[in-house]
Amino acid sequence: MILVHTPNPKEVAAYLDLFQAAMPEESFASLDQADLGQVRHLIAWGLPDGLIARLPKLRAVFALGAGVDKLLSRPDLPADLPLYRLLDSGMAAQMTEYIRYGVLGYQRNMDVYRRQQAAGQWRMLAPRLPGDIRVGILGLGEIGSAAAKALSKDGYQVSGWSRSPKHIHHVRSLHGDAGLEKLLENSDVLACVLPSTPQTQGLLNGERLSLMPPGSMLINAGRGDLLDQDALLALLNNGHIRCAQLDVFAQEPLPHGHPLWQHPSVAITPHIAAITLRQQAVEQITANLRKLAAGQEADGLVVKSQGY
Amino acid sequence: MILVHTPNPKEVAAYLDLFQAAMPEESFASLDQADLGQVRHLIAWGLPDGLIARLPKLRAVFALGAGVDKLLSRPDLPADLPLYRLLDSGMAAQMTEYIRYGVLGYQRNMDVYRRQQAAGQWRMLAPRLPGDIRVGILGLGEIGSAAAKALSKDGYQVSGWSRSPKHIHHVRSLHGDAGLEKLLENSDVLACVLPSTPQTQGLLNGERLSLMPPGSMLINAGRGDLLDQDALLALLNNGHIRCAQLDVFAQEPLPHGHPLWQHPSVAITPHIAAITLRQQAVEQITANLRKLAAGQEADGLVVKSQGY
Repeated sequence: MILVHTPNPKEVAAYLDLFQAAMPEESFASLDQADLGQVRHLIAWGLPDGLIARLPKLRAVFALGAGVDKLLSRPDLPADLPLYRLLDSGMAAQMTEYIRYGVLGYQRNMDVYRRQQAAGQWRMLAPRLPGDIRVGILGLGEIGSAAAKALSKDGYQVSGWSRSPKHIHHVRSLHGDAGLEKLLENSDVLACVLPSTPQTQGLLNGERLSLMPPGSMLINAGRGDLLDQDALLALLNNGHIRCAQLDVFAQEPLPHGHPLWQHPSVAITPHIAAITLRQQAVEQITANLRKLAAGQEADGLVVKSQGY
Repeated sequence: MILVHTPNPKEVAAYLDLFQAAMPEESFASLDQADLGQVRHLIAWGLPDGLIARLPKLRAVFALGAGVDKLLSRPDLPADLPLYRLLDSGMAAQMTEYIRYGVLGYQRNMDVYRRQQAAGQWRMLAPRLPGDIRVGILGLGEIGSAAAKALSKDGYQVSGWSRSPKHIHHVRSLHGDAGLEKLLENSDVLACVLPSTPQTQGLLNGERLSLMPPGSMLINAGRGDLLDQDALLALLNNGHIRCAQLDVFAQEPLPHGHPLWQHPSVAITPHIAAITLRQQAVEQITANLRKLAAGQEADGLVVKSQGY
């Protein structure tokens, strides 16, 4: 028996239909229908406290998302229980769109024109071409690599940074502390898609953000705890950073009255840069279930010490 | 002698350097340096009244832009004087970027999130994929065709409308009055790149705009006189049209206090969607000058009866 759980019962019902149709030979059930003693696999986003202890035959957990920081932080998740995350399921394409929108807007000065419009100002700015813009991608996993490749094809100068060196055509790959400084110093637009891990939390502090070139842009679509929001606000207010497009925040929803809400140089989206697309998630997870049933390795196994 | 003129003396100086470097065998001059009696070719954007009458040896005019409606409306332009316009010179790529920015923002609900941000609202909307969005391009010349191809590659469902039928891979081509209605009825995003001609002026009137699907978007990057701005405002205010991205206006600059300036669903840019890029304009015009000198046909000859 395979248990499917998310905090939203309608979503669970939709997932059950899709999983059952994709694997009619298996039995999928929601929390209120399942025989917990028989559950071997758990497909979940958001776990009720104590659930795992009630699943004695549980062999593996499949996260319905790519970022598993919240799941990993739970004390009731056994260290030796395999956890698989979604590697893409349409999220790379969505993230690429989200970053491309920000980069294109920066290149074409759309943020400046928006501010001019608010002031009733008609003033043309010198055009910039994609080749004039240096884009830095923080995080070169499945999602970051896809975005880096797409932006490079769009004609931007793309560099990326990751824990280990990567080789992506036409993308300069940097790593390590020195590489991070180099990336920050040379990114007109810095787009962060890093996961939240003990190594990345607080990575974008005031000191590092100050390394970005004057007039640059920050896109954060990774996790809110990577970024010092107060430091960003200070750098926006003194004009060092020209604008920001933020999808994730230290606290979500972003609290009422937070100064980021009304900042004229900030675009806020409610954690929608890359949403798990159900059909694609179902395809990826059922492919993994079939691999495990055939005694093969499944994709997306989380290395708990690295956090993803 | 070749006379180079625009209303901006600094721009003229920059163009003179570029043209002279590209064609050292020819003599280029500005209005205050030129021996007007010897001018055979005029390269211009914006003509002083009476200038043409002072150029007895003038054989051809090269516009430093793609849209020649203002030049053609001048009574002092002899009907039999060949007029060449720029066919691309980097404008197709810029226009594609401008339209892509609008389409991407519409698909990803960035206009809605912007309004939610202004109200301090955190609310996720259902994601839409490129394949869910029908994009209609009004005008399938060099620029419109390039935009149609690029958006089709991005995954959008693209249709286009033009005076005569066109054949573009993966783009549905419509023409004629019935084709125009069909395009309007089936465009979630309508992007207009038409030139201003007697046939296109007033094309996007209230009746035609009302054919667009509820919740659709209008992008106008063609000419301001194609669009009934008051009709657009009424359709924005009653919610039939969700948002607009406007680069051109009936009167430019858009007058102070015009209701479009402060409309929360309108993004205004100051006629920057596609700016003539000097180096590329110089390359295209010098190639044309060489063709004419060799007795060949040059590109971009304007058919005055059709207006482009």
